[in-house]
Amino acid sequence: MSNNGGKEIDQLISLMAKLPGLGPRSARRAVLQLVKKRDLLLEPLARALQDVASTVRICGTCGNIGTSDRCNICTNPKRDDTMICVVGDVADLWAMERAAVFKGQYHVLGGVLSALDSTGPEDLQIPRLVERVKGGVTEVILALSATIDGQTTAHYIADQLENTGAKITSLAQGVPIGGELDYLDDGTITAAMKARKNF
Amino acid sequence: MSNNGGKEIDQLISLMAKLPGLGPRSARRAVLQLVKKRDLLLEPLARALQDVASTVRICGTCGNIGTSDRCNICTNPKRDDTMICVVGDVADLWAMERAAVFKGQYHVLGGVLSALDSTGPEDLQIPRLVERVKGGVTEVILALSATIDGQTTAHYIADQLENTGAKITSLAQGVPIGGELDYLDDGTITAAMKARKNF
Repeated sequence: MSNNGGKEIDQLISLMAKLPGLGPRSARRAVLQLVKKRDLLLEPLARALQDVASTVRICGTCGNIGTSDRCNICTNPKRDDTMICVVGDVADLWAMERAAVFKGQYHVLGGVLSALDSTGPEDLQIPRLVERVKGGVTEVILALSATIDGQTTAHYIADQLENTGAKITSLAQGVPIGGELDYLDDGTITAAMKARKNF
Repeated sequence: MSNNGGKEIDQLISLMAKLPGLGPRSARRAVLQLVKKRDLLLEPLARALQDVASTVRICGTCGNIGTSDRCNICTNPKRDDTMICVVGDVADLWAMERAAVFKGQYHVLGGVLSALDSTGPEDLQIPRLVERVKGGVTEVILALSATIDGQTTAHYIADQLENTGAKITSLAQGVPIGGELDYLDDGTITAAMKARKNF
């Protein structure tokens, strides 16, 4: 539908509407805001997108996003190369880094096994993980989502890594910080109960 | 906070987070999506923003957004120049056009009078409206929001246009299509009752 702003505006709205979290209505609002704040928002955003489009690279080692063929984490000499944390997606890697609790290396699978989305082992970066682990890694931490698909993927990877000699661990399951028991699902309470610790 | 994707990515995320409807978390998701769909989304969006930045103009007559100094509506010979519909914002103009019920001209005020946002008459395009109305307009339709600020603005404009001889009308107030009485506020029901019509 035309918004009477000309074809350039219509084209921009239809592209913005494809972003996650935005629909046609919010894309329209966003574009009006951009046009109103031309110097503060529209032009800087156009430049920033251009910069990202011309510089962004997928790290050839771990699958993180960066501006060179090997990312900031893989090239950081302070990080422990003997530990690899396996994550589904770059967003998960960023979430781990925000928690700032892990100082080893990462491996981004590019998704998890999923029958619904027909994602099979051949769609994930598992062979490259096996290769990396064979090159002197002592611990592999499976930081996959606590969903059926995430846990299926974790079991599959554990099988593949069986003969590498590396220790395989996974994130603990239990009550989240700030979580009220009343609002937690049975699965979480069962997991927290089974993994209970001395106080 | 750094997301380990390099400064270009961080810059893009912080700009995206300024769009209405997006916060830091959804901006991060949007940027990851953009990077994943580089050819389909990132590069077209960068080009579309560049196109809009270089072509967009505010119409010198009505205040609509377009790609020339006079917008598509102002230059459309099929539209009735003797009627002006006064709206607060370009978004309101687009909403009116989507309803496709009005075939006259528009006048975008650029906001409404608001004590809270300290928007006074000098911040709105009211003098230019008075000027346009004096040039042969027979009806001015005040299509302002049914809020205190919108109605204050409508009264102020009606005062300013008093001596122009043009007929001043405003959008009807009442029960919205699909509205259930049970869920409507008292103000709407009072307005609908006062403006009741023969069935």
